[in-house]
Amino acid sequence: MRFDILLLAPLGSILALAFAGYLSVRILAKSEGTDDMVRIAEAVREGAYAYLKRQYSGVALFFGIMFLILVALSVKGHLPIFVPFAFLTGGFFSGLSGFIGMAIATRSSARTTNAAKKSLNSALQIAFSSGAVMGLVVVGLGLLDLSIWYYLLNWWYASHPTPHGMDKLAAITSTMLCFGMGASSQALFARVGGGIFTKAADVGADLVGKVEAGIPEDDPRNPAVIADNVGDNVGDVAGMGADLYESYVGSIVATMALGVAAFGKLGLSLQSITIPLVMAAVGVVSSILGTFFVKTKEKAEQGALLAALRRGVFSSSIMVAIGSFFVVKFNLGLSHIGIYYAVLSGLAAGVLIGLSTEFFTSSKYKPTRSIAETSLTGPATVIISGIAVGMSSTAIPVIVVAIAILASYYLSGGAGDPSIGLYGVAISAVGMLSTLGITLATDAYGPVADNAGGNAEMTHQPKEIRQRTDALDTLGNTTAATGKGFAIGSAALTALALIAAYRDQIQILGGKIDLSLMNPRTLVGLLIGGMLPFVFCSMTMKAVGRTAGSIVVEVRRQFKEIAGIMEGRAKPDYARCVKIVTAAAQKEMILPSLMAIASPILMGILAGVDSVTGMLTGATVSGFVLAIMMANSGGAWDNAKKYVEEGNFGGKGSLAHKAVVVGDTVGDPFKDTSGPSLNILIKLMSMVSIVFASFILSNTLMK
Amino acid sequence: MRFDILLLAPLGSILALAFAGYLSVRILAKSEGTDDMVRIAEAVREGAYAYLKRQYSGVALFFGIMFLILVALSVKGHLPIFVPFAFLTGGFFSGLSGFIGMAIATRSSARTTNAAKKSLNSALQIAFSSGAVMGLVVVGLGLLDLSIWYYLLNWWYASHPTPHGMDKLAAITSTMLCFGMGASSQALFARVGGGIFTKAADVGADLVGKVEAGIPEDDPRNPAVIADNVGDNVGDVAGMGADLYESYVGSIVATMALGVAAFGKLGLSLQSITIPLVMAAVGVVSSILGTFFVKTKEKAEQGALLAALRRGVFSSSIMVAIGSFFVVKFNLGLSHIGIYYAVLSGLAAGVLIGLSTEFFTSSKYKPTRSIAETSLTGPATVIISGIAVGMSSTAIPVIVVAIAILASYYLSGGAGDPSIGLYGVAISAVGMLSTLGITLATDAYGPVADNAGGNAEMTHQPKEIRQRTDALDTLGNTTAATGKGFAIGSAALTALALIAAYRDQIQILGGKIDLSLMNPRTLVGLLIGGMLPFVFCSMTMKAVGRTAGSIVVEVRRQFKEIAGIMEGRAKPDYARCVKIVTAAAQKEMILPSLMAIASPILMGILAGVDSVTGMLTGATVSGFVLAIMMANSGGAWDNAKKYVEEGNFGGKGSLAHKAVVVGDTVGDPFKDTSGPSLNILIKLMSMVSIVFASFILSNTLMK
Repeated sequence: MRFDILLLAPLGSILALAFAGYLSVRILAKSEGTDDMVRIAEAVREGAYAYLKRQYSGVALFFGIMFLILVALSVKGHLPIFVPFAFLTGGFFSGLSGFIGMAIATRSSARTTNAAKKSLNSALQIAFSSGAVMGLVVVGLGLLDLSIWYYLLNWWYASHPTPHGMDKLAAITSTMLCFGMGASSQALFARVGGGIFTKAADVGADLVGKVEAGIPEDDPRNPAVIADNVGDNVGDVAGMGADLYESYVGSIVATMALGVAAFGKLGLSLQSITIPLVMAAVGVVSSILGTFFVKTKEKAEQGALLAALRRGVFSSSIMVAIGSFFVVKFNLGLSHIGIYYAVLSGLAAGVLIGLSTEFFTSSKYKPTRSIAETSLTGPATVIISGIAVGMSSTAIPVIVVAIAILASYYLSGGAGDPSIGLYGVAISAVGMLSTLGITLATDAYGPVADNAGGNAEMTHQPKEIRQRTDALDTLGNTTAATGKGFAIGSAALTALALIAAYRDQIQILGGKIDLSLMNPRTLVGLLIGGMLPFVFCSMTMKAVGRTAGSIVVEVRRQFKEIAGIMEGRAKPDYARCVKIVTAAAQKEMILPSLMAIASPILMGILAGVDSVTGMLTGATVSGFVLAIMMANSGGAWDNAKKYVEEGNFGGKGSLAHKAVVVGDTVGDPFKDTSGPSLNILIKLMSMVSIVFASFILSNTLMK
Repeated sequence: MRFDILLLAPLGSILALAFAGYLSVRILAKSEGTDDMVRIAEAVREGAYAYLKRQYSGVALFFGIMFLILVALSVKGHLPIFVPFAFLTGGFFSGLSGFIGMAIATRSSARTTNAAKKSLNSALQIAFSSGAVMGLVVVGLGLLDLSIWYYLLNWWYASHPTPHGMDKLAAITSTMLCFGMGASSQALFARVGGGIFTKAADVGADLVGKVEAGIPEDDPRNPAVIADNVGDNVGDVAGMGADLYESYVGSIVATMALGVAAFGKLGLSLQSITIPLVMAAVGVVSSILGTFFVKTKEKAEQGALLAALRRGVFSSSIMVAIGSFFVVKFNLGLSHIGIYYAVLSGLAAGVLIGLSTEFFTSSKYKPTRSIAETSLTGPATVIISGIAVGMSSTAIPVIVVAIAILASYYLSGGAGDPSIGLYGVAISAVGMLSTLGITLATDAYGPVADNAGGNAEMTHQPKEIRQRTDALDTLGNTTAATGKGFAIGSAALTALALIAAYRDQIQILGGKIDLSLMNPRTLVGLLIGGMLPFVFCSMTMKAVGRTAGSIVVEVRRQFKEIAGIMEGRAKPDYARCVKIVTAAAQKEMILPSLMAIASPILMGILAGVDSVTGMLTGATVSGFVLAIMMANSGGAWDNAKKYVEEGNFGGKGSLAHKAVVVGDTVGDPFKDTSGPSLNILIKLMSMVSIVFASFILSNTLMK
């Protein structure tokens, strides 16, 4: 009987992938439009593939080296033998999620433009379906990978001894945590590399195109315009796909690991690890059903469009809320129904964070409008007010997550048994992410709409078409910020779960750990951990600045050396710009990523495991707050610019417009490079700590 | 014998105040220059006095209310009866420090301009002496207040019972902690109110003067110019004086409180509280001697000027390093000489933080130059690179403080007795601040130089004079950032000490406290605490933006309505601008200050004392990092602007210059309003928690 319900996980996976396949076939059946439109779309697609090819070969090298290190640690007895392989598959599937998402996104943009000729709803359908493919692929592959490893390890340990004589399920979940590390590593590279690519291209194109040459965004005369469009796909699609794959499986494996620790003594381990997996399957069904609620009518205002997307997300949430009651009840019975309340807390927290994000980043509300208004006194006040809005926007999500932590801990029974409370916190993250199939769809459709707009501009479509794609694009800024809110909100919860798993791991390995705030090593860890997200953001922002600078130089060169570009008589060398950003992004992503991996190991060796725990907590606290601030400042600046472009405070071309363009440009690396990488950073650091726990315990200078 | 050495504290106080008096007399003996110069200086002085008068009456109301609340708590038995009075004197002396500093600064600026007619060194001597008066007044009044309370309480408790039957010295130090709360409250109001005033006036004047009307900085035709100069005095002088008074006495009282807890069982309480007081007296002597090393020759480059100031600080540091060895040895003997190493750690950490700040904010080095270079691609890249520089500049101070914590904890013997380790951490902050007399002098001379430049500009002095005052002013940006580095570095250490004192207080009161990172309430406290500095900065930055906006409107009105201003035929209505900013700053400072005081009480009532501890720690971690980032970004932007103005990348009037002006304007509230308030915020929150501990324990909803 037990076996039966767990089978829902692979079944959910197959369902998600099948529905994604069906949507893809439906999208591909549509026309890409005129030859022009096809050509532009092809150029973007080629650039994106070229980037990913290069990215994956670079990352493959990293994975190869890490694999060897993990094998060496396994041989020395620090790790179970499956870990290196789990690490590889985590990385592989995370990368694959991004790749498939990008493959469909680059095939959907021209089709969206073409559909926009017919109606707003047709365009929305294609863009949103493309997003849904990505959302479902992420959850489908996530569940697939989780299922494969679960069944494989279950079969293996049925007839082989477990490491350290652990409980079988504990052995399984601790190996699975390590595939989380693979997923997180891949995700970090994808987010950082893709984020640097997309924003360097965007900023570079804007600086020299809009600001210097005075040509509009997405103008085909701008040599960096294709790179900019490629960027949307490699950063905002492939990067985000890998990122959310990581969040999704991370939250599930962390919950499984804590489940064994919490429910082992009650003989309910299997049930406790079944719950997150089956809940995920319920989420798949709910997300698929939710997609049917997303439609709009012509002449829809922003409000109506947003309502269309919200209908989808809300109906899925309600379905998950109902379904997970039965999942918890069936597995643990009514005596542990508190776990269900933990799920609800997470789900509710996700919705509230979404609403808060919307409030702070949509031009319908005061915060973004107030930024737009400061454009009247120039760029400096736009920057000050944008940072202030981002900073104030941290309050609600932090308080919401804080309440979710207390609610999920105490409602699931943490007062009686702290380990069950921590399981409750972990599963609240699963609750928040259970509707990922559809929330990711509302997020990933944005770049498709953005590219569709680019395609319309470059192929000189009538104004009406561009207006439709712009309507979709503007909304995309808000949904993108919402998606980042989910990623970071769930990351805070998952990171706490991972820190708890780290403590368990140290204790299993026989290490001592003192987590008191009055322990100077913990405190020092907290301080250094609190600083890391800042340094990380600094590195990635500098990388964007440097790379954008090289694009500016290249575009200026082309304007000078290729005669007739500005008059539209000669074609710019788009490919060269793509190449420059590709090479730079690859180079620049190395250092920040290595920092994430090296810092917990270094900290552990220099100052012991107490410091590592402090560091993970400090990074979670400041990373969480900083990530929200950066995502929301960036989103608000972008929409403040769009608000001015709609004709407010002087409209396009006014001094006010110039001022908001500065805000938008500053916001680019905030919201699409540095900010969204932070949620991965904090989880990756935790996973690295867990995987290297045994190594650190044996080699630390401060026992 | 014991009594004898403690008398050094009041003697040090008298020496500091006497030398400050001597310097003041010497400054006042110099001429203020021509009638013009005197008139301008008078206008600034009047504005500053008017502001402070208004500020103090507003703050008096707050102090009155708080006094009544504290009296009520005393009557109910929550607090010793002296606390309300200690609170008042802390506030009074903190305010007085700022007031005296401002009184002398506003009398020194015209004298500095006049001396600049003679030589650079003469100008430096006056500006620096003015700074030294402030530095010595701060330490002098600090030691005075500390001494009075110590002797008063010592006399009282000799014949009266202590509350809760505490040890006599414990009763004394716990009351003295509460006078820290008075100092911190006053300091927060002074920093926030003054910070809003100065930066709103500065930003407002720049926006409409430099950017719109195209007239230079400090041009007498700009109606906001006097307000801008007043701002330097009320924010950067009076605000900073109150701030550092708070840091100084805060670090000493925290150390005294932990000393009793740590050394009580060894019968060495009195010795342990003598050490910080006598070390402070040694610091007074060292600082006075250090001032004699500060002189420069004509045609001095930035490097030589900086070297002059450094000579003063370094020689003082060496004297303190030598002197405190004997202080520790005399009081605790060689068996506890580890305490001396803790002092050294703090002193060294202070110097290293200073050097790091200099590296990141001086235009001699790469970071600031790289910001200046990005001006070639416009304001957006200036902002991105400035934020990135600020973020990366957090690494060294955090690591330095982390090492100082570990070193002072373990070297003083924390491995054997954690409470002695915490005393070590606390005293390292005293070490860092022991040379405050001179470090504050190098910091407080900046605004005098800035005002001197303003005076030169407004009275149309020859170019040479302005160049000399500018040379002093530029250096002032770096030393100001250094001063902020000291304030925040010592704040991190003091805050940790205060958190430890809070825990002790809860335990004395019979409360239970669980400080584990795995306690969900602690975690929730950490998250919310980590968010508070962001929200606080958001509030203060928005306040600057709003107030600057109202200045822009007023200046535009004057340009329009008062005919002949631009041609210099009519005098603008300076006083009206001063009035507007005064009123606005008073209104705007209330909310953020109340947040600081209310949040720990609210948190305690809603979620218990564990959460409060978490909150204090979270606020310390993120406040520390954020404060460094904001101070250094701001300092670097300011100097990047000056670097361009020196003729680099196109010089004054170029597009590059416009871009760096945007950076400078954004940096203004970063470095002079939001950032420097954070160090007070985190300590005030801790002190409020301690003072209200008993109240919270009785009223919390989550025991």
